[in-house]
Amino acid sequence: MKTINVAMIGQGFMGRSHSNAWGQVAKFFKPPIKPVMHTVFGQSDEDPQAFADNWGWQNASTDWEALVRSPEIGLVDIVTPNFMHAPPAKAAIAAGKPVACEKPIAGTLDEAREMAQTANKAGVKTAVWFCYRRCPAVALAHQMVRDGEIGEIRHVRARYLQDWADEAIPLLWRFDKNLAGSGAHGDLNAHIVDMTRFVTGHEITQICGAIAETFIKKRKRMTGVAAGGLAESHGAGDEMGDVTVDDAVLFLARFSNGAIASFEAARQATGNQNRNGFEINGTKGSLKFDFERMNELEYYDARVPRRAQGWSTIMCTHGGDHPYVANWWPDAHIIGYEHTFTNEAYDFLCDIDGQKPTVPIPTFEDAYQTQRVLEAALLSAQEQRFVDLEQVK
Amino acid sequence: MKTINVAMIGQGFMGRSHSNAWGQVAKFFKPPIKPVMHTVFGQSDEDPQAFADNWGWQNASTDWEALVRSPEIGLVDIVTPNFMHAPPAKAAIAAGKPVACEKPIAGTLDEAREMAQTANKAGVKTAVWFCYRRCPAVALAHQMVRDGEIGEIRHVRARYLQDWADEAIPLLWRFDKNLAGSGAHGDLNAHIVDMTRFVTGHEITQICGAIAETFIKKRKRMTGVAAGGLAESHGAGDEMGDVTVDDAVLFLARFSNGAIASFEAARQATGNQNRNGFEINGTKGSLKFDFERMNELEYYDARVPRRAQGWSTIMCTHGGDHPYVANWWPDAHIIGYEHTFTNEAYDFLCDIDGQKPTVPIPTFEDAYQTQRVLEAALLSAQEQRFVDLEQVK
Amino acid sequence: MKTINVAMIGQGFMGRSHSNAWGQVAKFFKPPIKPVMHTVFGQSDEDPQAFADNWGWQNASTDWEALVRSPEIGLVDIVTPNFMHAPPAKAAIAAGKPVACEKPIAGTLDEAREMAQTANKAGVKTAVWFCYRRCPAVALAHQMVRDGEIGEIRHVRARYLQDWADEAIPLLWRFDKNLAGSGAHGDLNAHIVDMTRFVTGHEITQICGAIAETFIKKRKRMTGVAAGGLAESHGAGDEMGDVTVDDAVLFLARFSNGAIASFEAARQATGNQNRNGFEINGTKGSLKFDFERMNELEYYDARVPRRAQGWSTIMCTHGGDHPYVANWWPDAHIIGYEHTFTNEAYDFLCDIDGQKPTVPIPTFEDAYQTQRVLEAALLSAQEQRFVDLEQVK
Amino acid sequence: MKTINVAMIGQGFMGRSHSNAWGQVAKFFKPPIKPVMHTVFGQSDEDPQAFADNWGWQNASTDWEALVRSPEIGLVDIVTPNFMHAPPAKAAIAAGKPVACEKPIAGTLDEAREMAQTANKAGVKTAVWFCYRRCPAVALAHQMVRDGEIGEIRHVRARYLQDWADEAIPLLWRFDKNLAGSGAHGDLNAHIVDMTRFVTGHEITQICGAIAETFIKKRKRMTGVAAGGLAESHGAGDEMGDVTVDDAVLFLARFSNGAIASFEAARQATGNQNRNGFEINGTKGSLKFDFERMNELEYYDARVPRRAQGWSTIMCTHGGDHPYVANWWPDAHIIGYEHTFTNEAYDFLCDIDGQKPTVPIPTFEDAYQTQRVLEAALLSAQEQRFVDLEQVK
Repeated sequence: MKTINVAMIGQGFMGRSHSNAWGQVAKFFKPPIKPVMHTVFGQSDEDPQAFADNWGWQNASTDWEALVRSPEIGLVDIVTPNFMHAPPAKAAIAAGKPVACEKPIAGTLDEAREMAQTANKAGVKTAVWFCYRRCPAVALAHQMVRDGEIGEIRHVRARYLQDWADEAIPLLWRFDKNLAGSGAHGDLNAHIVDMTRFVTGHEITQICGAIAETFIKKRKRMTGVAAGGLAESHGAGDEMGDVTVDDAVLFLARFSNGAIASFEAARQATGNQNRNGFEINGTKGSLKFDFERMNELEYYDARVPRRAQGWSTIMCTHGGDHPYVANWWPDAHIIGYEHTFTNEAYDFLCDIDGQKPTVPIPTFEDAYQTQRVLEAALLSAQEQRFVDLEQVK
Repeated sequence: MKTINVAMIGQGFMGRSHSNAWGQVAKFFKPPIKPVMHTVFGQSDEDPQAFADNWGWQNASTDWEALVRSPEIGLVDIVTPNFMHAPPAKAAIAAGKPVACEKPIAGTLDEAREMAQTANKAGVKTAVWFCYRRCPAVALAHQMVRDGEIGEIRHVRARYLQDWADEAIPLLWRFDKNLAGSGAHGDLNAHIVDMTRFVTGHEITQICGAIAETFIKKRKRMTGVAAGGLAESHGAGDEMGDVTVDDAVLFLARFSNGAIASFEAARQATGNQNRNGFEINGTKGSLKFDFERMNELEYYDARVPRRAQGWSTIMCTHGGDHPYVANWWPDAHIIGYEHTFTNEAYDFLCDIDGQKPTVPIPTFEDAYQTQRVLEAALLSAQEQRFVDLEQVK
Repeated sequence: MKTINVAMIGQGFMGRSHSNAWGQVAKFFKPPIKPVMHTVFGQSDEDPQAFADNWGWQNASTDWEALVRSPEIGLVDIVTPNFMHAPPAKAAIAAGKPVACEKPIAGTLDEAREMAQTANKAGVKTAVWFCYRRCPAVALAHQMVRDGEIGEIRHVRARYLQDWADEAIPLLWRFDKNLAGSGAHGDLNAHIVDMTRFVTGHEITQICGAIAETFIKKRKRMTGVAAGGLAESHGAGDEMGDVTVDDAVLFLARFSNGAIASFEAARQATGNQNRNGFEINGTKGSLKFDFERMNELEYYDARVPRRAQGWSTIMCTHGGDHPYVANWWPDAHIIGYEHTFTNEAYDFLCDIDGQKPTVPIPTFEDAYQTQRVLEAALLSAQEQRFVDLEQVK
Repeated sequence: MKTINVAMIGQGFMGRSHSNAWGQVAKFFKPPIKPVMHTVFGQSDEDPQAFADNWGWQNASTDWEALVRSPEIGLVDIVTPNFMHAPPAKAAIAAGKPVACEKPIAGTLDEAREMAQTANKAGVKTAVWFCYRRCPAVALAHQMVRDGEIGEIRHVRARYLQDWADEAIPLLWRFDKNLAGSGAHGDLNAHIVDMTRFVTGHEITQICGAIAETFIKKRKRMTGVAAGGLAESHGAGDEMGDVTVDDAVLFLARFSNGAIASFEAARQATGNQNRNGFEINGTKGSLKFDFERMNELEYYDARVPRRAQGWSTIMCTHGGDHPYVANWWPDAHIIGYEHTFTNEAYDFLCDIDGQKPTVPIPTFEDAYQTQRVLEAALLSAQEQRFVDLEQVK
């Protein structure tokens, strides 16, 4: 059986999700190439050996450059903080190795464009962990739109709402533009822009207004965290520091096929812990998705007799008909958050082997297109005007 | 235009619902006979004239016997307390007049049987206010079952749950067997037995176990209410009195077609104010109804492609396809509780004129059959055994 | 008992709702002044006498000017098409009579401003039929926000989605700008702008982008309808005509307290028949409303222990605690669309008598403020820029 | 760090779930004893080596008796078909080793009683994989009832509905009483009896009626499966064979505290793929659970002000307050079916080490008590009478 040695660059929260995916994928799926969890990289003060021991990586390393170049490594997976994505990604591309990267792929649009172009030129396989594409319900939505089950799309509403960022939360790295790049916009809108591009099959062509807002402009500085530190939790002192990212970003948009859309990302939308979803209305039907009930897809079929029309809740767990789930459990034995990563690992292994993935992989090119949309939306908010996507490259 | 003079015997809470129905029916529907709100009867201490003035009855009367016999009256509607249904009903039948009666039609099974038989013999049109049949969603369920949309029925689950009867409630007439006949059983199970007979089109043939329970066996006696008084609210003193009716009754049953069923009525099911509903599973599909969302019917169609199967929420407000609602408002401009009475008034007027009602009317015969089921269930609970319906007549 | 003679100017669909409200209000409520359904006005070819007979108006008239001036009339209620609101409204104000008017109160912002100013100067009581304020759930939301139950408001999402306007629908008057004023914007956004102003207690200060779209630009001309005719249904010929109003309008906005908001109105949002609702997130809690389940209000209380926090579905039917419903039916015996009109009729009668209504009445001034927002949103869409409300007066 | 070598006796569908649990538990939790996946047993024709390779077992064995006795093995986990549970379980007890066993623990009540008694006498730790106790939502329900959050329990409604068993399904081993023991009753009612005993903290004392029904009495025999074979899928021939188990079993019951209850298991409840749930009403509140939305618990708190009372949907994913989930993912990043097994593996490892599990473990004694209830229910159905639990031992 073919195998491929994986090097994971980074640890942290996302490192857990990725490690789990690489460990589970060959147990539940039959990928054409079996991934070997070869080496995990971490800063020496992060204790990568402990991480490796816990998650089953065979080795730990504190030298990512050597690791990426190592002839033993066949696949590079990047989960470092956003501003540290580009260097290992470019090194992997230079080495001609398939590379998977957390989203957003880069801190700036220039960097994202360069990464996409370089990968295209090098002919290297890329994947970005826009995993929500691989919720079975979202993949099913993509398939149903593709198959004409809702007709021509007219309306798109997408929102990703969270509520963890109240006044009690100190000045985490997530509130620092230098470390995080942006706030809710890059963290959350990135997902729903990718997801709606994926499901609709259309590109956004114009931003028709936007709001970017930081409700809480100062937060307590954390104690015992070095400048640039990425700790997720800790004590907070009395000294206040500036929040330099957005709490919420909303924007309106037009799609290439004429559909009109609204997007919203927020971190103080009380009562919405992880409300990542969309509603799409077409001429023959509609689809709705909410990640908090990620095994379900709501479907309105306007072609059945009017007497029986209604919003149907499809439990997307039927192996014979719904993507991915034949590899998991029987009907309505639901799956969860981390399964979307395993599903993506499987599809990327297929892609690397030249086989067609279940649904299209989000490539570096995709991530670049999504980042253009986010950039245009910020421009719209700042300059208080509409922005054509052609102006943002 | 044909008209018919209506006499309403009784007032109270149900008197409001009926008065409203007689007043609204010709405004929203075009009944073949227009009802005229001729006279309302009440005890002299109930001030029937004030009731008449408020609701638009042309006259008030304190002599129901004369009223029922009066040649001016064409239709008798009975809303007195349960134990006072039979006398005016029999008088109306004797006079050959169509009669509508609140449920349950009688305090005893003997009386119910006699009323049904007498009406049958006299060829008098009867209607019982089992109004839930005339929620558009329930009428639609009936039509869909009739049209084969769920195949052969295997499972019926019905429950009617309320939660108003905690310890704070004093010893209302509803807790007195002499006045109320029974507790949750006659009040609530009566409705779901009628509703499931109506929707399934089958009769119950056996009771396979039952529980009747009174959780709160003593309550504070009310002050300032004469013995036999029917006041709904008032002060409570310190003296305790016995509750002589059930708080909750559950039973299992078999239907004539082989379907198996469970029923439950309860008054202390915290969180369920008026949860009157059913789920019915057939070989080709299923239906679910909950009165708290009475405009909606849930439908699972097992014949659509498996990929898109799911529970559909049908908003039963489309005039062209759903019963009754063409006479009310546009799509999803929902209707409420009292509309079911108006819908029944319309259908009974059609029936009296020899026209087919939208869906079958619950007659005295129906009410008798339902009462047989309730009686059999009580017998099962008391004697701790199964009871064939044939044994209860 | 005090009475007031009502004249209703106009008939049509809205005439049914209003007639029902005037007829029901004194049956279910105890208004301080009892309305008498004195005269309905209609064009002679509309047969106002038949309308009067059906709905219980004592008289019919084809001369609205005389009617408004008549000393017998104490209250003028206007339900004519939008472009015909202003003349009778101004006449009623000139006569010093309380006036109720359908929304939008005027075809142009100038006219709306003038109506509001004239009424203010004359000291005449006005009411606009923004009835959704009087869904018990919406009135409760207003009260809860007012009482601090969700803290300071940060996010407002409002949408009013319908789906009746597909290609099969001919060129109704609703698609003609001269007759209808606007499309989904004036029809639907008007309601959610009023509703969110009412619930939040704040005013919109800036429009931050907007989209106005007409998906179907040509429709079949109707046959047998005179130019300017307002028929709701009829045959369609082969000749096509231009649609001159919007199918959908979206916009982003800022509220005076710093909250950020999105609004959307659509007529082709497949699967949404009458999805009129909002979600409002505050620092201490959140509220959600959807008219298709108008008896329910969803509430998230972020102050209860975290273990038990969740979105609660409040069934707003408890007489002791929820507005209006003590006058209707017991717990969870739900009410429907037309009850919101009756609730408003009651409150306006209180207001006329100098008593405080249950919740604030939408006055002509309110309607003018709402119309300013709609105007600013259209300007934003047309000029592709942000618009401060101060610029639109 | 302490470790324990696990031997798993059996493979199949449940073998996957258990293998996953033993593999994941130390990655996500910090159990006091780390499990080592030492050896899996399978029949030689089942190819246990392939199973071991796939799931990460270090060894494969075809001799379970030697394996259970082996001094290297510290924990025995049994996932064989039901009729083969007792022999390895007894052997493990005889060897003084902790033993985990799939449910039901035995084919007969005698055997279950003997297993429970033997384990008690030997002082051996036992666990039964009634994993639904370890859905965070169900564990939370247990904690909330224990903490008095719903007061005294009055009503229990439990049902476990599936719909996979239509006419097209051939005569699987699951339809053969000799192999499966029973149908929906042992498969599904077992879970809800355990779950309600666990959540309420009370025992069932009387069965008040029951129905056991086999709707489809003959099915096509499978081809290419040896007699006694346990294949899950395969071709079906033309020859028909008898179904010897139930399709559905309903029963009514009383709990020791006076609560009254209904239970139902069904395999042809169209539209319900894995509807395993309950509703429990207490004097101060209520709880509802549905496995198809297993991350959610519905709670009605009757102690909050009436104005704001409603059914709350608690998303049971908040690490600080909800059981187990701190070890998984952030808020509303939901978990799935297999996590309940991992949660149980963790708790059993705690229990073996003398630490208190998160919530009580279902022991062999628990499984025996649950089996008594199932036996009594069948007796009630067969003999058409009520059955006191004291009569069934």
